[in-house]
Amino acid sequence: MVKVILIGSGNLAQHLIVAFQETEKSGRPIELVQVFARQKEGLTHLLHSDKIVSDWSQLKEADLYIIAVSDDAIGEVASQLPFTNRLVVHTSGAMDLQTLDSKNRKGVFYPLQSFTKNKKVAFKTIPICLESENEDDYKMMEKVATAISNKIYPIQSQQRKALHVAAVFVNNFTNHLFKIGAEICADNQIPFEILQPLILETVQKITTISPEQAQTGPAIRNDQKTIATHEQFLTNENQLNLYKILTQSIQNNGKKL
Amino acid sequence: MVKVILIGSGNLAQHLIVAFQETEKSGRPIELVQVFARQKEGLTHLLHSDKIVSDWSQLKEADLYIIAVSDDAIGEVASQLPFTNRLVVHTSGAMDLQTLDSKNRKGVFYPLQSFTKNKKVAFKTIPICLESENEDDYKMMEKVATAISNKIYPIQSQQRKALHVAAVFVNNFTNHLFKIGAEICADNQIPFEILQPLILETVQKITTISPEQAQTGPAIRNDQKTIATHEQFLTNENQLNLYKILTQSIQNNGKKL
Repeated sequence: MVKVILIGSGNLAQHLIVAFQETEKSGRPIELVQVFARQKEGLTHLLHSDKIVSDWSQLKEADLYIIAVSDDAIGEVASQLPFTNRLVVHTSGAMDLQTLDSKNRKGVFYPLQSFTKNKKVAFKTIPICLESENEDDYKMMEKVATAISNKIYPIQSQQRKALHVAAVFVNNFTNHLFKIGAEICADNQIPFEILQPLILETVQKITTISPEQAQTGPAIRNDQKTIATHEQFLTNENQLNLYKILTQSIQNNGKKL
Repeated sequence: MVKVILIGSGNLAQHLIVAFQETEKSGRPIELVQVFARQKEGLTHLLHSDKIVSDWSQLKEADLYIIAVSDDAIGEVASQLPFTNRLVVHTSGAMDLQTLDSKNRKGVFYPLQSFTKNKKVAFKTIPICLESENEDDYKMMEKVATAISNKIYPIQSQQRKALHVAAVFVNNFTNHLFKIGAEICADNQIPFEILQPLILETVQKITTISPEQAQTGPAIRNDQKTIATHEQFLTNENQLNLYKILTQSIQNNGKKL
């Protein structure tokens, strides 16, 4: 039986609690021993209050301590742990392994997903990126990760940093383009839902062909007439600026400027 | 029975042929009378060659003539039609109603989707945007559109232009961001598939909440530390430039610059 203790009460911590509880029910050899949270009340809807502790001295012994707190708090939390030489991991895509205090064995347990409060996620499909200092610790983390997800990847700190930047492009920036699409629709009394089948198709395509092969539109065709019509249409300077720069970027495709 | 003649043999024309044939099978009151194509061979895998004509003089009488050719060819095709005062529509998101020759009644029948050759589409879910010069013609087009799709929208020329620009943002530009994500992954020996669940979640979110509400990430949080780390990470000038401009655009959210 692998014993896990979770530190944190935010969005990700709550999703992990639910995932570990489902794992326990299914008889997998993982036990969520305790959760550390400054305010117990935030978690009592999810687990028995005798499993929630707010005092470092009450922490029990476990095989794996998962710190699921905001990036800025990881270092402080790690240094406050009242023990040494145990396996302590953080869950951040942006932070180095070295953010953790060296008095314990370090690791990273990074589920690559955008978690929304109160929205249930199918944890099984979420990729979990693992990093450790040695092979035994990796195997321990892998055992825990495998219990909640089908997709486990060994990802080193530098790769994780790349992944985090890539995620900003495909998630945050993509969503911003959806917002601009919605803005243009609203400005012209068009329901945004009319664009949703196109958006779904855009995403489904890249599950079968590469984004490079999937590229369509006036920019890649170098259809100057349509590009000029669009630029003339866009009176919002910010939208026009993005249109020009993204069109240019598509046309520079592959060139390292 | 509404009689339809299709002009064109490209991607969209082929998808429309398949959709109309399925409609005929299901007993709906639409008949695809003929298809005009310069080269018959391109369509013989889809329909009987006696239904394909390559000579304008062979065109039969129909209630609706749908021109599904490239934007540049619409005007010329419309002017070559050897009849007057019939309902002739084009299928382009980018072109004005006025592109069509005035000797016939004009309309637009624009399916808003990105069609890929040989990839079957569920036409029923594709929004069809209709425009006409009078209500009778609109009703005729609506009858035909309803036979192949569940989503029909009246969209005037100016709105269609807006929709076309919005589609470039949510489809072409979004796909380009996926390409940059794939590039960053490849440069760091990370499989791109690791980002796909995140991409799917990004898209699923906006079917329940608006893109504005769905925005997450360092830009909207104004997390300067993470932004600085990402900017330092990006050595490709084009990627760095896009990162800065999209971050800025998210932070200017709502402000009309």
